[in-house]
Amino acid sequence: MQGIARMNSERRKAVVLVSGGLDSATTIAHAQSNGFTCYALSIDYGQRHISELAFAQALCKSRKVAEHKIIKIDLTQIGGSSLTDVNQKIPIRETEGIPSTYVPARNTIMLSVALGWAEVLNARDVFVGANAVDYSGYPDCRPEYITAYEKLANLATKAGVEGAMFRIHAPLIALKKAEIIKHGYELGVDFSQTVSCYQASSSGAACGVCDSCRIRKAGFSEAGIEDSTLYM
Amino acid sequence: MQGIARMNSERRKAVVLVSGGLDSATTIAHAQSNGFTCYALSIDYGQRHISELAFAQALCKSRKVAEHKIIKIDLTQIGGSSLTDVNQKIPIRETEGIPSTYVPARNTIMLSVALGWAEVLNARDVFVGANAVDYSGYPDCRPEYITAYEKLANLATKAGVEGAMFRIHAPLIALKKAEIIKHGYELGVDFSQTVSCYQASSSGAACGVCDSCRIRKAGFSEAGIEDSTLYM
Repeated sequence: MQGIARMNSERRKAVVLVSGGLDSATTIAHAQSNGFTCYALSIDYGQRHISELAFAQALCKSRKVAEHKIIKIDLTQIGGSSLTDVNQKIPIRETEGIPSTYVPARNTIMLSVALGWAEVLNARDVFVGANAVDYSGYPDCRPEYITAYEKLANLATKAGVEGAMFRIHAPLIALKKAEIIKHGYELGVDFSQTVSCYQASSSGAACGVCDSCRIRKAGFSEAGIEDSTLYM
Repeated sequence: MQGIARMNSERRKAVVLVSGGLDSATTIAHAQSNGFTCYALSIDYGQRHISELAFAQALCKSRKVAEHKIIKIDLTQIGGSSLTDVNQKIPIRETEGIPSTYVPARNTIMLSVALGWAEVLNARDVFVGANAVDYSGYPDCRPEYITAYEKLANLATKAGVEGAMFRIHAPLIALKKAEIIKHGYELGVDFSQTVSCYQASSSGAACGVCDSCRIRKAGFSEAGIEDSTLYM
């Protein structure tokens, strides 16, 4: 599930979930540096920080992915998160437990579309930038979740039944934010092409105070790498 | 996962996946007869038999569900199935193995949206009309898949982490098609309100020769119940 992917000719295509943030930018660079031809998938789920999709597009272009698809799934129809319900405020202080920015079943929905596309592409590898160290406590970013998803993927699919083994790679899952930034930096990721803010402006300027901005800022500071984020 | 759901006051809301076919019509009647208030979810995934969604709407209205949502996820963007790619023909003979009507990751995608909505509703029960007896061999209709999905659901969600247990109910999974029809009949399902055909006309008339039509026809015959399906 983690670490360096095995490389052989059958395993060189991968679907990579790309949000436009620094974790997924590092993940795509990681997959490429391990020899994978990357098929990038972004989900337009009605997130209020919709500018991340423009960053995802620019990133995928500059990383020269084989293809980048944006698929729309309007999760504002179910709501339940401050990221999909504009009537809720984005929290700007650390809160106890899982914050309101948690989007019910988001990673499960995204991984499922990625799995479907991977099967069609005859790819067996799916990469996701989930991280369980410097994160907001989202349940669908934990190693046990990724392991369970991988098991499901192999039961859910025709390819799985026929003996192909899907692997869900979460290469950042055990890294601190500063380590992710260092890893991305070494792989040549241009972090100015990424946006992490939950309430980024339409041009991608970051608020600097939401959970995601706080974690990102502290990561650059700890990594000793210049933070090229454009703040409001 | 199967059988009669436990009933108590916290468990009375359920999200039910409704396609417009006879299995999901029976599933919704089953859930209602077990005391659940049903929130119906249909996915407009670009299926060629789009008329099933009109049947789902009519069915949900006549079953008086609490709410019916149709969420669009355009799986024609990934293709890979004769149900989402109009350039592929629907098979009209039994084929070896899993037929081309298999849609990669479809049930996983649908269950994931259902799970997200269930969490928002504070429901803990999700019903799906999956069946592993008289079916087309789809991997995501098997009991082991449902069990793995239920495990994932409890790892994926805030509610799961906080100790609530989601249940994925597939009450038809071990029934023969004739048994499903008998069960639905006893529960008052009006099968003329359902369509199963993979290439139904825009008004819902069935071809009578695809896999799904063949299984449905044989089911009515074996059950000794009049088949009210409108054939082309």
